[in-house]
Amino acid sequence: MDRINAIRKQITSVDISKMKRAQERLDALIKPRGSLGKLEEIAKLIVAITGKENPVLRKKIIFTFAADHGVVKEGVSAFPQAVTGQMVYNFLSGGAGINVLARHVGARVVVADLGVASDLKPDKRLIIKKINYGTKNMAEGPAMTRDEALRSIEVGIEIFEEEFKNGVDIVGIGEMGIGNTTAASAITASFTNMPLAQLTGRGTGLNDKELENKIRVIEKALAVNKPDAKDPIDVLAKVGGFEIGGLTGLILAACARKIPVVIDGFISSSAALIAYCLEPKTKEYMIAAHASVENGHIFVLNHIGLKPIFDLELRLGEGTGAALAMGIIDASLKIMTEMATFKGAQVSERAP
Amino acid sequence: MDRINAIRKQITSVDISKMKRAQERLDALIKPRGSLGKLEEIAKLIVAITGKENPVLRKKIIFTFAADHGVVKEGVSAFPQAVTGQMVYNFLSGGAGINVLARHVGARVVVADLGVASDLKPDKRLIIKKINYGTKNMAEGPAMTRDEALRSIEVGIEIFEEEFKNGVDIVGIGEMGIGNTTAASAITASFTNMPLAQLTGRGTGLNDKELENKIRVIEKALAVNKPDAKDPIDVLAKVGGFEIGGLTGLILAACARKIPVVIDGFISSSAALIAYCLEPKTKEYMIAAHASVENGHIFVLNHIGLKPIFDLELRLGEGTGAALAMGIIDASLKIMTEMATFKGAQVSERAP
Repeated sequence: MDRINAIRKQITSVDISKMKRAQERLDALIKPRGSLGKLEEIAKLIVAITGKENPVLRKKIIFTFAADHGVVKEGVSAFPQAVTGQMVYNFLSGGAGINVLARHVGARVVVADLGVASDLKPDKRLIIKKINYGTKNMAEGPAMTRDEALRSIEVGIEIFEEEFKNGVDIVGIGEMGIGNTTAASAITASFTNMPLAQLTGRGTGLNDKELENKIRVIEKALAVNKPDAKDPIDVLAKVGGFEIGGLTGLILAACARKIPVVIDGFISSSAALIAYCLEPKTKEYMIAAHASVENGHIFVLNHIGLKPIFDLELRLGEGTGAALAMGIIDASLKIMTEMATFKGAQVSERAP
Repeated sequence: MDRINAIRKQITSVDISKMKRAQERLDALIKPRGSLGKLEEIAKLIVAITGKENPVLRKKIIFTFAADHGVVKEGVSAFPQAVTGQMVYNFLSGGAGINVLARHVGARVVVADLGVASDLKPDKRLIIKKINYGTKNMAEGPAMTRDEALRSIEVGIEIFEEEFKNGVDIVGIGEMGIGNTTAASAITASFTNMPLAQLTGRGTGLNDKELENKIRVIEKALAVNKPDAKDPIDVLAKVGGFEIGGLTGLILAACARKIPVVIDGFISSSAALIAYCLEPKTKEYMIAAHASVENGHIFVLNHIGLKPIFDLELRLGEGTGAALAMGIIDASLKIMTEMATFKGAQVSERAP
């Protein structure tokens, strides 16, 4: 907890004064004021976060954290638990959705095992920081101990710091974990008090009956565990997951280093929600990539106060939406740095 | 008219049968079915349009057509008419928004003068196919003659065919013309019968009073000219623009060659609307990039039956939204061609 508290104290507000100057520069470009909409907002935000007048995002990393969930015993997922570990191998071999989309935007994928239920083959590209072999079944008791929750956050901090040594300009967060929309729904319910029927979605593809069961399982998990929303670590421990805790730590560490964090879908956003509840200033460093198909996602974004860049009806996770958003973020900065000004280009300004 | 009719006859429906096969391939990839949402829909559409199983969009072109509008005499724009020509020079020197965003996605910008009000300096990168020195003031009579309307469409066809000789895999359409949101609103009103108060927006930044004036000017133009919605050439001639006619022709020619057409904002969409009214099959080749801030845009898209990929609150035109959308379209095809399959990657499929 000491390390987490130390990181929290390092997180300071972004430099709002820089946004005004960035807006002035955007207004000098040969276009009607504000006509590039969200691109202008994003560019200003990156200036405020990084404190740099001309930020260039050369080193992009998508962190994809994997872990398993004991609650799959309750039949909350359409896919078998083995898929979590199998997908980790695919992240390493470059054939998963996140690999394709990360390549598309020039980002690197950093894969970490924070709690896959089986031992994965060692691979120099795989970070193995297993907290445990999957969480316990949250429908029967806490998913993890408080110590494990703290450890998962600390591991996320460690992984970020390791990469930060080699340079990173922007991070995207993603995840893989069969059963983790159940954890994300339970976390969201704990903090927002929204009804589970609204917060719970079909994940990888549940039918109506399976969805009803999933809602009942989450109800039971909340009743059995009574997570305390005033204590985000308690929520993470009782109904969270190791990959979620890891992403929470990663967000805290990135904010402390003034690195923009691109949030992917529902599960990544539940990690962002925990980070936000631990330290509200983290919100200033977050960019919500997209609005997921998964029901609960928009409620998490609303609770934090984030607006997604786009809605491409995605629900894959892994960081795929965050990767696509990095392409748009790059474009927004190029607008600011590569476009000509009215003065430089001798274009008449609007009538007085 | 003969050339336009000949092109219309060459436009055949896209190959829907290929979409089913593309969906099967998408379903075999290591992800829950349909979890990449719009990316999957776009990939299937490109397969159907091109008829290719593995389309790769190497040669991307954004066509940015410029022309002036006599209606600016009525005070419908916040910027002076001279800006149209000034911006053409900027498109050539690479400092405009469209240049930045086209470079970002690896697209080339082809700039053509279809009716700028002044003589532009010759430049080998500039296509000069001036129909006239701007349109006439539509508030007083037809913006152009019927012959000029036909000629503008034919010029659009010619420009496409010239580029097609050197190869093109996808086109985006964009425009520049001070006063052209007035033309786009008048065109949209002619075909949709929606009230002008809903169809008319602030363009480059009108205030409330100027917006009221713009609506009155369009009302007058429609009353004076009585454009016949059953005759799209009549609508183009009476309340359109040379750049809009050119884009209409370009769309027809691209569809005849089975090349996907990415539609940008309100003005580009008004050209798409004319093309659609001339030949409804053109719709099958169109991809709507974005939902513009400009009020009338969504009504045009609804009328054609197109759904925008994203909403970034853009209202610059030039083809900027189309360029950004090309990045997403590229990503969708990479998903289809670069992702591993369940079988190939030894990932367990969902529980039966």
